[in-house]
Order: sequence, then structure tokens, then C-alpha cells
Amino acid sequence: MTHDEAKGNAMTGILSGILPVAPTPFHDDGRLDADGMRRVIDCMVDQGVDAICILANYSEQFVLSDEERALLMRLCLDHAASRVPVIVTISHFSTDIVVSRARAAAALGASMVMMMPPYHGVGLQPAPQGIFEHFRAVNDAIAIPVMVQDAPLSGVQMPVELLARLARELENVSYFKIETPFAADKLAALIAAGGDRIKGPFDGEEAVTLLADLDAGATGTMTSALFPERIRPIVMDYRAGRLDAAFDGWRRCLPLINHENRQCGLRAAKTVFAAGGVIGSDHVRHPLKPMSERIRERLLWLAREADVLALRWGK
Amino acid sequence: MTHDEAKGNAMTGILSGILPVAPTPFHDDGRLDADGMRRVIDCMVDQGVDAICILANYSEQFVLSDEERALLMRLCLDHAASRVPVIVTISHFSTDIVVSRARAAAALGASMVMMMPPYHGVGLQPAPQGIFEHFRAVNDAIAIPVMVQDAPLSGVQMPVELLARLARELENVSYFKIETPFAADKLAALIAAGGDRIKGPFDGEEAVTLLADLDAGATGTMTSALFPERIRPIVMDYRAGRLDAAFDGWRRCLPLINHENRQCGLRAAKTVFAAGGVIGSDHVRHPLKPMSERIRERLLWLAREADVLALRWGK
Repeated sequence: MTHDEAKGNAMTGILSGILPVAPTPFHDDGRLDADGMRRVIDCMVDQGVDAICILANYSEQFVLSDEERALLMRLCLDHAASRVPVIVTISHFSTDIVVSRARAAAALGASMVMMMPPYHGVGLQPAPQGIFEHFRAVNDAIAIPVMVQDAPLSGVQMPVELLARLARELENVSYFKIETPFAADKLAALIAAGGDRIKGPFDGEEAVTLLADLDAGATGTMTSALFPERIRPIVMDYRAGRLDAAFDGWRRCLPLINHENRQCGLRAAKTVFAAGGVIGSDHVRHPLKPMSERIRERLLWLAREADVLALRWGK
Repeated sequence: MTHDEAKGNAMTGILSGILPVAPTPFHDDGRLDADGMRRVIDCMVDQGVDAICILANYSEQFVLSDEERALLMRLCLDHAASRVPVIVTISHFSTDIVVSRARAAAALGASMVMMMPPYHGVGLQPAPQGIFEHFRAVNDAIAIPVMVQDAPLSGVQMPVELLARLARELENVSYFKIETPFAADKLAALIAAGGDRIKGPFDGEEAVTLLADLDAGATGTMTSALFPERIRPIVMDYRAGRLDAAFDGWRRCLPLINHENRQCGLRAAKTVFAAGGVIGSDHVRHPLKPMSERIRERLLWLAREADVLALRWGK
């Protein structure tokens, strides 16, 4: 299946394939790099992504002020224009704040919003009904799809029954990125429980669990921006029934995927984008720290070995 | 010791006694109630508190936008004027943001800032050196004391050695509110390790552990604003050697303290302040929920039984 064939998905209005997270570039002194942000979007368009997700955890959303979030949202939506759909992450503990972020994103042209359940620190979280109402408030405020991010960072357990209820009762809540342990079994159970209300069962976590998640029925993945041009064909091959090609592709990608997921985290994409001239600095805001030189050297070696587009994009 | 005698502490520039957290009042529709905020400050001044802490967890800081935080900080510092010292909570995962919040608080006349170590969700936290640098950046940016809030909500373990290092190496980091399990033993160990660099070893958690914390050397407590006029004498009696009076006072307060700490949380002060006409509504922002009617009735009964000032303040 070519990229053009795959775009058939767009006809149905359902996003699938690969929807990676854009890193948020900073200058060496920590200021936002607005030009760098535009170049990140341009590079990701060239990577052939199906959509771009902004302001996610891999965008360092937890070190941004409200003002910076608003600025980045506007800048990214403007700059992506209609070249590629943009998914805006809106998570916040406050239901009112998450609703106002959702409204702002929809008004500026976002194609989808993504959110975690409400959480703060360790243990501050509502009962299941409060979680449901939090999503319902967003659902009722906008007319674009909502992706539920089910990730361990929130500390909130969302059983399949709750996720399926969200899908059944809230028309816009139709995408689910499952990043919990044993993600594939949860995806399969969710698809069984939610049926065609689950429009986008998604893999996450840099694709470390991609093969099993595709087996379970995932229709796409939300990785980082590190090398979606190499991961997207795995999804396309799998969904077109070319299982051997999908498996070979995943196996080729895994050394870099694992190095990113377990050693680098959100720093991997920034470091490769900086090395490739997409952005000027791979600075992460304190208290995050640069990766060690040994981890960085291995990352760049693996990226060269995988012939990653971002590594030559700005050269 | 009378209130005037106790104010001798102010001469040394060291805060002790009771520094309660101001609740953040909202209207029934969730909007900030600025007039109510001023009345909360006025009521707390009448309660005879030694300082007022704003924007803390019991102020629902996690449901406020950046803009609302800035507005509340300015309003509270203006309105408290020089009647009572104000402590501004500045916690944020980003070191740059916490530094800019600290600078803004100091510039507007805060007497102290309070902060937790950097945390986000479950498990996103720096190594001890990153925590140290986070506090050092604040220490270096301002010339007022910093209170370290050591609370389970952050999910960050801060061993006594790290807290003592903060106290030894960072001149402004000199107050410590310990709310972890077995707080008294941690306070005693911290005082032993940090010596006179620990200018304010504090009890927290609504005073559920106050007696043992005073035994361990605590010089004060940071409770809610529910009834500091009843809890402050416990601290004063204890520190003046009137141990029987302190014990009797604590025993009289405990039913309400425990009901607040274990059944109501931050909602207790709001509900009593609303019942007493200090504020117009005890609304908490979603996904927080009102307490059940049964819990509320018992709270008000206990507050009447303890003859709480806030319950008659606005009448």
C-alpha cells in the first residue's frame, strides 16, 4: 500500500496509521524556539505522518506555562495549516480548564484533542464517575474526536468497562491510546466491549508493543517524531495483510525504538532533530537533564544505522 | 503566653506558631470569588494566625490557571498588606517556572515561599541532584525563606540527608513542613542533622500528628484555616512548658481535626466558612465533588461543638 492508498482513511474521516508527537524545541537558555517549532512541523510533514500530536508528554507539556501552551497551539495549527491534521493535548486536573483548552483547540482548527483522565501527583484523582464526567464535559463542548490517553503516568486505573462506557455514551470519545502494561490484551478487550464505537484503537509508547497491539486490532500508533517514516510502513504492511514485511520492518526498527523508550525518553527525538539540523538545540528544561554522552552516541549511531530522515533533513 | 508574647517570634524574623492555608473561594458556577478571598484573609487575621499560606493544595492550586494564580497572589498580598505575613506556594515541575513564581512572590511582598519537589503524575521526578538544583535555583533567585513541603502527594522520597543538605547549603531553605508517614521521627532526625539551619521544623496535615511533632521539636504547624484559633494555643502551651494544657487542647480539637483530615479534606474549611457567612459558596471545582450530606452535617456539628470562630464570623 502506498502513502496515497493509505490516505483513503481520510475519506472516512477516521485517523489511522501514525500520529506522532511533536517535540517542543527550546533554545539553549530554555526559551521557546518558535522557528524551530515550525521546522519540526515541516520535517514531520516530510516524514509522511498521518497527523501530528502537540503538547503531549513527549512535548514536555509539564514544563510549559499556560501562556506558552496557548502560543504553541496557535503557532502549530497555523503552520500545519491543512497539510496535516493536528491533535492537541489538553490534559489538566480541572474540568473547566480542560474544557476551555478543548474549545480553544477546536476553534483554531484542531482535528482531535487528546487527554488523560484527571490526576495530580500521587493519589489525587476522582472516582470513576468523576472521570466519566470530566470526559463528558469535553465531549459536550466540542464537535471533534477525543483520544483517551491511558498511560501509567496518570496513576489512574481505567478499567475496560469505564473506557467502553466512555465510547458508548460520549459520541466524540472514540480514540484510545493504550500504554498500560499488557496493552494488547486491554486493546482487544476494549474493541470487544466497545465495538464500532472504538474508531481508533491506538498503540503508543514509541511502538515497543506495536506488533502485539496490531494483532489485537490497533489501527495505528502514536510514537515520537523520531522516525515515523520507518514505523508507518509496519502499520500499513500489517493492515494490508503483508505480515512478513510488517514483522521484518518492526525487527529492523526495534533497536532504536528500545533505546528511545528505555534510555532516552522524550530527549531522543530532540537530539536527533538537533543533529539533523531541524532544530538548533536539544535542550530540555530543568529538572529534566541531557542524556549522558554514552547514551547519546549510541542513539545517533542507531539513528544513522536506521537512516532516519530527521538526521539528514536540515543538511 | 498571650498572643502578644508569642509575637516576640516576629522580632527574630523566624515564623512559628500557626501558618494556615487559605482556601480559594469560588462562586457556585466555579468562577473565582475575589471578594470572598478578601474576606477569607480578614477572617484568618481575626483567627490570630501567625501567617497565611496561599495557593497550597488546600487552596485547590491544581484547579487554577496560571492567570488565576497570579491574580490571587496579587490580591492576597495587597489585602493582607502588613497585617500578617503571607507565604506563597510556588510548586511546579519546571525549574524556570518555579523560579519566576518565586521572584514574583518576593517582589510583591511575600514573607516566604513554599514548594514541593518537582513531580508530575506518578513517577516523573528527577534524581536527588535534580531536586537539589530545583531548590537551589529558587534559593538563588530570592532573599526570603523557602519552606520545603515534604508530602506524599508529590510521590517524591526526600531522605533526611537530602533535606539536611538543602538546609546546610541553601541559605534561604530553612523551613520544612513534614507530612510523610512517621513525621515526628523524620522531624527529629532532620533537626539532629540540620541543627540551627532548620529555622522552622513544621507539622502539617491538619494537625493530626501535632503532639508527637511538637515532642520531636516542631515549632509550629501549617493546618487549614478551619479553626487555627483553637489549634494555635496548643502550640503556644506546649512551647511554654504547659504540657497538660497542650494535651487537653489537642484532645478537645481532635474530633474535628480527624473529621477534616480523613473525611472532608480541603472542603471542610470552605463549608464552615460558607456556613459562617465568610464566603458565599463552598463550591469546589470539578472533578472534586461536594461532600455527602451526612459528612457535612457531622462537620458542622463538630464545628459548633468546638465553637469555631469562622462559623460565627460573618453573622
